[in-house]
Amino acid sequence: MDPTTLIAIASIITAGLTIGIGGIAPALGEGRAVATALTALAQQPDASATITRTLFVGLAMIESLAIYSFVVSMILIFANPFWNHVIQAAGK
Amino acid sequence: MDPTTLIAIASIITAGLTIGIGGIAPALGEGRAVATALTALAQQPDASATITRTLFVGLAMIESLAIYSFVVSMILIFANPFWNHVIQAAGK
Amino acid sequence: MDPTTLIAIASIITAGLTIGIGGIAPALGEGRAVATALTALAQQPDASATITRTLFVGLAMIESLAIYSFVVSMILIFANPFWNHVIQAAGK
Amino acid sequence: MDPTTLIAIASIITAGLTIGIGGIAPALGEGRAVATALTALAQQPDASATITRTLFVGLAMIESLAIYSFVVSMILIFANPFWNHVIQAAGK
Amino acid sequence: MDPTTLIAIASIITAGLTIGIGGIAPALGEGRAVATALTALAQQPDASATITRTLFVGLAMIESLAIYSFVVSMILIFANPFWNHVIQAAGK
Amino acid sequence: MDPTTLIAIASIITAGLTIGIGGIAPALGEGRAVATALTALAQQPDASATITRTLFVGLAMIESLAIYSFVVSMILIFANPFWNHVIQAAGK
Amino acid sequence: MDPTTLIAIASIITAGLTIGIGGIAPALGEGRAVATALTALAQQPDASATITRTLFVGLAMIESLAIYSFVVSMILIFANPFWNHVIQAAGK
Amino acid sequence: MDPTTLIAIASIITAGLTIGIGGIAPALGEGRAVATALTALAQQPDASATITRTLFVGLAMIESLAIYSFVVSMILIFANPFWNHVIQAAGK
Amino acid sequence: MDPTTLIAIASIITAGLTIGIGGIAPALGEGRAVATALTALAQQPDASATITRTLFVGLAMIESLAIYSFVVSMILIFANPFWNHVIQAAGK
Amino acid sequence: MDPTTLIAIASIITAGLTIGIGGIAPALGEGRAVATALTALAQQPDASATITRTLFVGLAMIESLAIYSFVVSMILIFANPFWNHVIQAAGK
Amino acid sequence: MDPTTLIAIASIITAGLTIGIGGIAPALGEGRAVATALTALAQQPDASATITRTLFVGLAMIESLAIYSFVVSMILIFANPFWNHVIQAAGK
Amino acid sequence: MDPTTLIAIASIITAGLTIGIGGIAPALGEGRAVATALTALAQQPDASATITRTLFVGLAMIESLAIYSFVVSMILIFANPFWNHVIQAAGK
Amino acid sequence: MDPTTLIAIASIITAGLTIGIGGIAPALGEGRAVATALTALAQQPDASATITRTLFVGLAMIESLAIYSFVVSMILIFANPFWNHVIQAAGK
Amino acid sequence: MDPTTLIAIASIITAGLTIGIGGIAPALGEGRAVATALTALAQQPDASATITRTLFVGLAMIESLAIYSFVVSMILIFANPFWNHVIQAAGK
Repeated sequence: MDPTTLIAIASIITAGLTIGIGGIAPALGEGRAVATALTALAQQPDASATITRTLFVGLAMIESLAIYSFVVSMILIFANPFWNHVIQAAGK
Repeated sequence: MDPTTLIAIASIITAGLTIGIGGIAPALGEGRAVATALTALAQQPDASATITRTLFVGLAMIESLAIYSFVVSMILIFANPFWNHVIQAAGK
Repeated sequence: MDPTTLIAIASIITAGLTIGIGGIAPALGEGRAVATALTALAQQPDASATITRTLFVGLAMIESLAIYSFVVSMILIFANPFWNHVIQAAGK
Repeated sequence: MDPTTLIAIASIITAGLTIGIGGIAPALGEGRAVATALTALAQQPDASATITRTLFVGLAMIESLAIYSFVVSMILIFANPFWNHVIQAAGK
Repeated sequence: MDPTTLIAIASIITAGLTIGIGGIAPALGEGRAVATALTALAQQPDASATITRTLFVGLAMIESLAIYSFVVSMILIFANPFWNHVIQAAGK
Repeated sequence: MDPTTLIAIASIITAGLTIGIGGIAPALGEGRAVATALTALAQQPDASATITRTLFVGLAMIESLAIYSFVVSMILIFANPFWNHVIQAAGK
Repeated sequence: MDPTTLIAIASIITAGLTIGIGGIAPALGEGRAVATALTALAQQPDASATITRTLFVGLAMIESLAIYSFVVSMILIFANPFWNHVIQAAGK
Repeated sequence: MDPTTLIAIASIITAGLTIGIGGIAPALGEGRAVATALTALAQQPDASATITRTLFVGLAMIESLAIYSFVVSMILIFANPFWNHVIQAAGK
Repeated sequence: MDPTTLIAIASIITAGLTIGIGGIAPALGEGRAVATALTALAQQPDASATITRTLFVGLAMIESLAIYSFVVSMILIFANPFWNHVIQAAGK
Repeated sequence: MDPTTLIAIASIITAGLTIGIGGIAPALGEGRAVATALTALAQQPDASATITRTLFVGLAMIESLAIYSFVVSMILIFANPFWNHVIQAAGK
Repeated sequence: MDPTTLIAIASIITAGLTIGIGGIAPALGEGRAVATALTALAQQPDASATITRTLFVGLAMIESLAIYSFVVSMILIFANPFWNHVIQAAGK
Repeated sequence: MDPTTLIAIASIITAGLTIGIGGIAPALGEGRAVATALTALAQQPDASATITRTLFVGLAMIESLAIYSFVVSMILIFANPFWNHVIQAAGK
Repeated sequence: MDPTTLIAIASIITAGLTIGIGGIAPALGEGRAVATALTALAQQPDASATITRTLFVGLAMIESLAIYSFVVSMILIFANPFWNHVIQAAGK
Repeated sequence: MDPTTLIAIASIITAGLTIGIGGIAPALGEGRAVATALTALAQQPDASATITRTLFVGLAMIESLAIYSFVVSMILIFANPFWNHVIQAAGK
């Protein structure tokens, strides 16, 4: 197996697994945050402004963790320095 | 095994696993969010507008995590740069 | 093992596992949503219209996650671009 | 090992595992839904019509997830395009 | 190892595992449903007709999931198309 | 390793694992059902007839799942079609 | 490795694992049943006859699941048809 | 590796694992039973005779499951039919 | 690798794992029993005699499960029939 | 496989897994923190200033843990000393 | 690899794992026992003599399980009969 | 594979996994600490000074555990004595 | 690979894993004990002397389990009899 | 692979994993201790001196467990007797 193929395979598998695994916990965390937001809203409808604002800040923080994984995944597919090096070195 | 085959196999397996794994947590998170929304509705029917709106924003945020996985999965099947490179290089 | 066989095997195994794994969490999530819907109905029968509507929207959202997996699974069996390429390349 | 054998083995194993794994979560989800339906009935016997109806819709949604797996399993045993291709190619 | 042996082995192992794994969740789900039915009966003896009826419908739905696995298991042992093909091809 | 040996080994291992794994969940499910039956009896001794009857129907349903595994296990040991075929083919 | 040895090894390992695994869940289930029986007795000493009777029927049902595993384990050690066949075939 | 050695190794490992694994669940089950017995005694000291008796019957039932594993373990070490056969066949 | 070495290695590893694994559950079970004994004592100091006695009987039952594993472990180190046979056979 | 390829593959896989795994726990931890913040807000709206401030400090602490992983991941992709050494040594 | 080395390696690894694994459950069990002792003391300070005594007996019982593992571990390092045999046999 | 490559690969993988794994528990622990701090603040706003101070000391203690992992990870990438030795020995 | 190297590697890996694994449960157990001690102190400040004393005895007991692992780990690094034997035998 | 390389690799991997794994439980334990300390403070602000003191002693005990792992990890990187021996023996 030549280097090009190997690096391509590793990049493909890693790209998929990174976003696949990296999205698990944010989804659970956001589900939990949304759930308690709904409970809180039902319990204290008057504080809906504060609750909603805090919820959105929290969701953004949690979403950022999934986006780190997504960024790494995209880098591995479309801006992979190792792949670029090998392609260039092979002069293909 | 020639490079074409290997990259095809890696892409197929990764595409399937990415959406398979990446959809687990969003489903659990959405299930939790919907469940608490229903509890909240039963507890405070008057706040149904706020609850429903917050629920849908939350579901959209969580769904987005599954869509990241789906996008990577689709890229690997239909717009795979490594596959395109190998196909082109092999001149097939 | 020739490329045709290998890609066929990878597609078969991935197709099965994708829907097998991808259906786990939606089933659990829907079970939870339906369960709380029933609890909510028993607790607040008057809000049954809102509860049922919210439940169905939620179930549709969750079901969509399983359908992503099912779509990938079907694509791998019946519209697999890698398989088509290999079949065509092999001139069989 | 010739292609026919390999594809047959992969199909057999995948068919079994797909329905075996794919049936886990629906069974748990349905068990939960039925359990809460019974609790709800005991708690609010007057709403039995609404509860039963919602339960059956929910069970149908969850059952559909197991049926996706069963369909893929049956396709792999009785309508497997890869198997048909190999059988035809081998001219057996 | 000749094809006949390999396919026989794969069928044996898969048949056993399919029903072995496929029966886990229905048993747990039914156990839960029966348990809550008993709790519900103790709590609301007057609704025993509705509870029992709902329980049996639910058990039948859950049992069906185990039966899918059992069917696939039996097909793999006694009506296996791959085995039939190989036996016929080998002219044994 | 000749086919006879291989199929024998696969049958032995699968037979053991099938009943070993297949008996886990029914035992847990029955334990739960019996436990809640006892709780229900302590809570509502007057409904003991209904509770006992429902318990036995439930136990029979759950036991049936273990019996599917036991049946497959026994078939693999004493009425294994693959083994019979190989024994016959080998003319031993 | 000759067939005799292989089948002996497979039988030894399977026999041990079958009873080892197959006894896990019954022990947990019985422990739960006994525990709730004790709780029920403490809560409703007057119903001790009904509780004890139901407990013993339940324990017998659960014990039967472990006995299936024990039977398969004993069959594999002392009445193993594959072993008998191989011993006979080898004429030893 | 000659048959004697292989069967000896398999027997040693299986004997250890069987009792090692087979003792897990009974210990947990007995711990639970004893624990609830103590709770029940503290709650209803007058029923100590019935509670103690039921506890000992329950412990005996659960202990029997560990003893099945111990019996198989001892059989594999001291009365192993496969080992006896091989020793005899090898004429050592 | 000669038989002596292999059996020695298998015995060493199994001896360690048997007591290592076999001691997990008794420790958890005893911890639970002791914990509830303490709770029970705090709740009903007058019944300390009955509680302590029941606790010690229970601990002895659970300890016996760990002792089965310890016995097998010691047998494998100091009274291993397979080792004795091989040592004797090798005439070393 | 030459050193360049091997180090590239190891870097790709590790970079993906590091952020994939390293983001799990922070997401769960932040989800929990946000959830309790919302509960606290609903319970004590007057203390919203203190709660929000404490929440943000806590989120920053937890986020820092994910950022450690992200930093290592980025170093492995864009500032990998081992890769630089090998590239330089190979004089490519 | 000569027998001396192999047995030494097996002894080293097993000795470490035995105490590593064998200490898990006692630590958890003791933690639980101590925790409930503290709760009991806070709840019923007058019974501190009985509670402390029962706690120490229980801790001794649980500690004994870890000591079994420690003993086996020490035997494997400093009084290993297999090692002694091999050293003696090799006449080193 | 030459020593330089092997040590580089081991260092890369270990560096990533160390921080990836080592950050899991601190994140969960900090999430828990922050969560209870928020609950405590909502419950007892007057004690906010003490609570906040204790929280920050606790977070620092927990963060230190992640920093141990981060330090090891950085040492392995930028100050690895084994790597330095090998580089120097190879005279590259 | 010569014996010296192999034993060194086994010792290194085992030493690390022993303390790594062996410290998990004591840390959890101590965390639990400290946590309940704090709860107990908050609930019954007058009994702080007894609580603190019992806590420290309990922590010492649990810490001893981690110290067993640490001792084995140190023995394997600095006083390893197998290593000493091999070094001496090799006359290095 | 020469001994130097192998021991270096084993040391690198073990050093990373030891602190990675060994820090999990202390972090969870400390998180729990801090969390209950905060709850206790909110519940009984007057006992803050005793609570804080007990907390710090407890954190120190738990932290010591992580430090054992860190010490082993540092020994393996910077004061590894096996590495020193091999370096010296190889005369490099």
